Amino acid sequence: MTVKIAVIMGSKSDWPTMKHACDLLDQFNVGYEKHVISAHRMPTEMYDFAQKAEERGIRVIIAGAGMAAHLPGMTAANTVLPVIGVPGQTKALGGMDSLLSIVQMPTGIPVATTAIGNAGASNAALLALEILGTNDEKLRGRLKNYRQKLHDLAKESSGELE
Amino acid sequence: MTVKIAVIMGSKSDWPTMKHACDLLDQFNVGYEKHVISAHRMPTEMYDFAQKAEERGIRVIIAGAGMAAHLPGMTAANTVLPVIGVPGQTKALGGMDSLLSIVQMPTGIPVATTAIGNAGASNAALLALEILGTNDEKLRGRLKNYRQKLHDLAKESSGELE
Amino acid sequence: MTVKIAVIMGSKSDWPTMKHACDLLDQFNVGYEKHVISAHRMPTEMYDFAQKAEERGIRVIIAGAGMAAHLPGMTAANTVLPVIGVPGQTKALGGMDSLLSIVQMPTGIPVATTAIGNAGASNAALLALEILGTNDEKLRGRLKNYRQKLHDLAKESSGELE
Amino acid sequence: MTVKIAVIMGSKSDWPTMKHACDLLDQFNVGYEKHVISAHRMPTEMYDFAQKAEERGIRVIIAGAGMAAHLPGMTAANTVLPVIGVPGQTKALGGMDSLLSIVQMPTGIPVATTAIGNAGASNAALLALEILGTNDEKLRGRLKNYRQKLHDLAKESSGELE
Amino acid sequence: MTVKIAVIMGSKSDWPTMKHACDLLDQFNVGYEKHVISAHRMPTEMYDFAQKAEERGIRVIIAGAGMAAHLPGMTAANTVLPVIGVPGQTKALGGMDSLLSIVQMPTGIPVATTAIGNAGASNAALLALEILGTNDEKLRGRLKNYRQKLHDLAKESSGELE
Amino acid sequence: MTVKIAVIMGSKSDWPTMKHACDLLDQFNVGYEKHVISAHRMPTEMYDFAQKAEERGIRVIIAGAGMAAHLPGMTAANTVLPVIGVPGQTKALGGMDSLLSIVQMPTGIPVATTAIGNAGASNAALLALEILGTNDEKLRGRLKNYRQKLHDLAKESSGELE
Amino acid sequence: MTVKIAVIMGSKSDWPTMKHACDLLDQFNVGYEKHVISAHRMPTEMYDFAQKAEERGIRVIIAGAGMAAHLPGMTAANTVLPVIGVPGQTKALGGMDSLLSIVQMPTGIPVATTAIGNAGASNAALLALEILGTNDEKLRGRLKNYRQKLHDLAKESSGELE
Amino acid sequence: MTVKIAVIMGSKSDWPTMKHACDLLDQFNVGYEKHVISAHRMPTEMYDFAQKAEERGIRVIIAGAGMAAHLPGMTAANTVLPVIGVPGQTKALGGMDSLLSIVQMPTGIPVATTAIGNAGASNAALLALEILGTNDEKLRGRLKNYRQKLHDLAKESSGELE
Repeated sequence: MTVKIAVIMGSKSDWPTMKHACDLLDQFNVGYEKHVISAHRMPTEMYDFAQKAEERGIRVIIAGAGMAAHLPGMTAANTVLPVIGVPGQTKALGGMDSLLSIVQMPTGIPVATTAIGNAGASNAALLALEILGTNDEKLRGRLKNYRQKLHDLAKESSGELE
Repeated sequence: MTVKIAVIMGSKSDWPTMKHACDLLDQFNVGYEKHVISAHRMPTEMYDFAQKAEERGIRVIIAGAGMAAHLPGMTAANTVLPVIGVPGQTKALGGMDSLLSIVQMPTGIPVATTAIGNAGASNAALLALEILGTNDEKLRGRLKNYRQKLHDLAKESSGELE
Repeated sequence: MTVKIAVIMGSKSDWPTMKHACDLLDQFNVGYEKHVISAHRMPTEMYDFAQKAEERGIRVIIAGAGMAAHLPGMTAANTVLPVIGVPGQTKALGGMDSLLSIVQMPTGIPVATTAIGNAGASNAALLALEILGTNDEKLRGRLKNYRQKLHDLAKESSGELE
Repeated sequence: MTVKIAVIMGSKSDWPTMKHACDLLDQFNVGYEKHVISAHRMPTEMYDFAQKAEERGIRVIIAGAGMAAHLPGMTAANTVLPVIGVPGQTKALGGMDSLLSIVQMPTGIPVATTAIGNAGASNAALLALEILGTNDEKLRGRLKNYRQKLHDLAKESSGELE
Repeated sequence: MTVKIAVIMGSKSDWPTMKHACDLLDQFNVGYEKHVISAHRMPTEMYDFAQKAEERGIRVIIAGAGMAAHLPGMTAANTVLPVIGVPGQTKALGGMDSLLSIVQMPTGIPVATTAIGNAGASNAALLALEILGTNDEKLRGRLKNYRQKLHDLAKESSGELE
Repeated sequence: MTVKIAVIMGSKSDWPTMKHACDLLDQFNVGYEKHVISAHRMPTEMYDFAQKAEERGIRVIIAGAGMAAHLPGMTAANTVLPVIGVPGQTKALGGMDSLLSIVQMPTGIPVATTAIGNAGASNAALLALEILGTNDEKLRGRLKNYRQKLHDLAKESSGELE
Repeated sequence: MTVKIAVIMGSKSDWPTMKHACDLLDQFNVGYEKHVISAHRMPTEMYDFAQKAEERGIRVIIAGAGMAAHLPGMTAANTVLPVIGVPGQTKALGGMDSLLSIVQMPTGIPVATTAIGNAGASNAALLALEILGTNDEKLRGRLKNYRQKLHDLAKESSGELE
Repeated sequence: MTVKIAVIMGSKSDWPTMKHACDLLDQFNVGYEKHVISAHRMPTEMYDFAQKAEERGIRVIIAGAGMAAHLPGMTAANTVLPVIGVPGQTKALGGMDSLLSIVQMPTGIPVATTAIGNAGASNAALLALEILGTNDEKLRGRLKNYRQKLHDLAKESSGELE
């Protein structure tokens, strides 16, 4: 199966967060590639990656970054594939800096932003699957099963509480 | 052509913002449906809408709301279609309330969040097209043309400045 | 005695916070039921709970949730019983996300919001008792005794300081 | 019918906001009293009001104030009646100051906080009615009718949009 | 020597912060009294304290409190002595809640606010001494000596660095 | 009568705000001097002013400034007279920048900070009078009369409302 | 004289702000070039500009942008010339989004950030001149004259006030 | 070689942060001097330092400070050398106080602000080198080599990830 999802991150220090995206894709047994591509330290590779992703068969890009997080937006500026941005939690400002740097994109270049940190990384993977699912009924079915499992676990935890 | 995009909003007062999403879809000549569905005043209709959207052929949902903006997240909780959330600008807090209410989704239910206000609404439409474009080379081509036009206009404006 | 208070929370991870509400109700020897009801993972059960709470004899609902905290507002949208919302403290943003997602409800559907975290959970229980106390002079008397004890403890602590 | 709801505000300048609470109570034809009671300029009257409200037959207090808004919390400190706090919108900080001054009450003295500004004032009135409704089936019925009207209006506005 | 400075705090949990004020006054060998006076749990004692402080010879009041910190403002509302407010650092919001609740006083009742936490407590003591110093040349002289010591220590630390 | 109060501001654009301080002092018929002293454009004059204020008979300094408001803190660094800081409201950030730049002083150099904007300027004047009042029973009496008037006006406005 | 300063901006809508930079350079009679270069709409031109600026003789780049302002940081990523970033004021968040997107650069790629809006644009120009002045004593002299004029104007305005 | 860079900080407690600036300069083998100069405790030395830096041969000043961080701005007010401000991370507010106190300088006196904390300190050093590099082709070459190393390390880390 062709790999349709790419998970990129601005620095290796983003891996503990972005691992949550990869774990979820593993759980779904969906192939993906993953790279460190720093917007600021590897600007040429970033453009190259973004501009060639489509022709290599990639269909969704998940990009995680922190602080003045330019990776998602600049990747989006170089492709018409949907780019999902995951704001990293930060020491000084909790991640408000990453969030605003990713979500407040000006008209013309969207970035699909998820929550700050681990929850956002997991959800970025689910969103990527939902996007692929728009044309894949079977995948939508698997996503429904996953939701059912989340539902059952939540319900079960209520039982334990009561 | 079947309508694949639904634009919903929490209140008629969101229309001046969400109009920017519809204008962009009109510009692309892509069909869509639009509704006011209040999460808080029409909770039953919201569930009904979200749960049946897939079987009616909808593939992407754009949901705009302000303040404690629950519409995008609760719609997402009832479908495995990708839901794009547009945070409305608000009088008291500028839209920080809408933004956090939409983007900070817990693990399991993603909402693809765009910028606060008009720019976010336009970008939500573009993101919806990019999502449909993951399986539609022609649409990707049209998106590239659109980008080219944005590029040309920006460049032109530089000429005027200089 | 019929149980009139329900304590619900969006996830089992909210229990360490919401336990403060339950402890206070225990201290008053007032019955209550408690459940995990996830707005996003158990949307159907949430509606069901909210819509049937009144006929089951519940008179006040305490709902705790974190991040994009939709549980209090969506419960409120499905009942005319007073709903008290407790914003969970969060790792990235301290709980500002939970607070704004709960308190900034649009016109028509109120949520009685308390402070972020443990203090808010304890106060939610007290508020529930105050609400039941509007029609129960004896309960108001017990609340006055409780206040007297808080007063005495605070005064005593001043003595220790001086 | 005895007046069970009191609407108080820290300054006459809060009236344009708090009027929304009174309008809603008028709409429900429910009696209320209203006063300017400044926590800072009329501290003695504030205590007096709070301490005697219960014996005068008041059952719920709605208190609106802006900036370092102490009125709701200090009223709550002097009564075991439920106090609903409405944060006023402010010029410099949008109302974030009023919100935090009202909602972040320490353990022991709850204030039921609603949204900043007009929406919060309307919702404070609805919350007061919901509180009285916990012991008044007929009032709950009227609140359900009101919800139904909100629902119908929202639905209607969708029709106009489409 | 009559005690002219009173240090009050909303809860014993404020002591680790307010201790910095007392330590500084001890260092200056200036007498003071200290009390826990909770605005919310000891409202009557708070008024009593504030209203009688002047006639007891107190000339400056230092009041520390956290969260919805009403103690400084409500004390100020009951005396024409200068009241210095120290915002406590808080777990959820860092102390932004305490700061805004103390500093954003409406026209008519000033509170002299210092920094959040320990630095603010030390500075509150210095400010109290500066206030007493407006009529006490000797005290101003001691304050100048203290400044000189701060200066020398800072300079010395530069030497160590270089 | 010797002038004991100085009102300084960072720029002539602060005058519409600082005028509220001067108006209040005029109302009390208390003499004061007023100057534009820019921390950044007139650094030498600022030091000179601060270092000589005491010997000229000044006893309290009111300093208003906006944005990165260094005037109050740097004045305080050069005198042991109490310095009251008034944060100016700002276009971009509402005055949060001015507030934090003034109030968050490190240990050793206090600035007595009041609210952002006009209310803060009026309160700065009142605080200056309260400080002078610590050694002036007559002035304390006048401040009590002023409070009484505020009280009566607030009470009167309640009468008009009811 | 070779042009050593380039003023770039993300969109023509940044011109009313960035004009303040150009006006100041005009006032100093220092040559500059100016362009609209959108990071998101003209990504290729942006790289090209940044990578060739040095060899064309440019020595300092002033880059203004708003919202998720990527232009300053991405320009900096492609040159070792100093890049000065001017955060644009924004409708929803006042410019906090632009500020954090520009200033919070990760280790390795600095952006010299100035204040939000017009003041920041003027100061960016002055900073550019100061940078060129590090090797140009005459320019430093002109900057000192400019400071003197600012000083004189500020002092004069004090005279008018008094 | 003459020392052209001065690294100053408001307190010895800033050293763990500012050490990152010095480490980077050491790495480049570029000379610098370093001092603790407290704006508030050593105001006279600060002016003296700032006013004489130019004639001593200093060409760029790096100034780190926390809370109400006045050191960078007040240094800038006394020299026409470029001043780079590094906002210290703070316990209560994460460093938002330091950032706004440094970056929001009014028109006329620029401070080149970098990110909060360690990243900002490292980048301040790089920025200082870039500024000296505007007139030193060799230094620009060394900066390019440094960038290349950053690039290679980032790329390498990607390899390890994959």
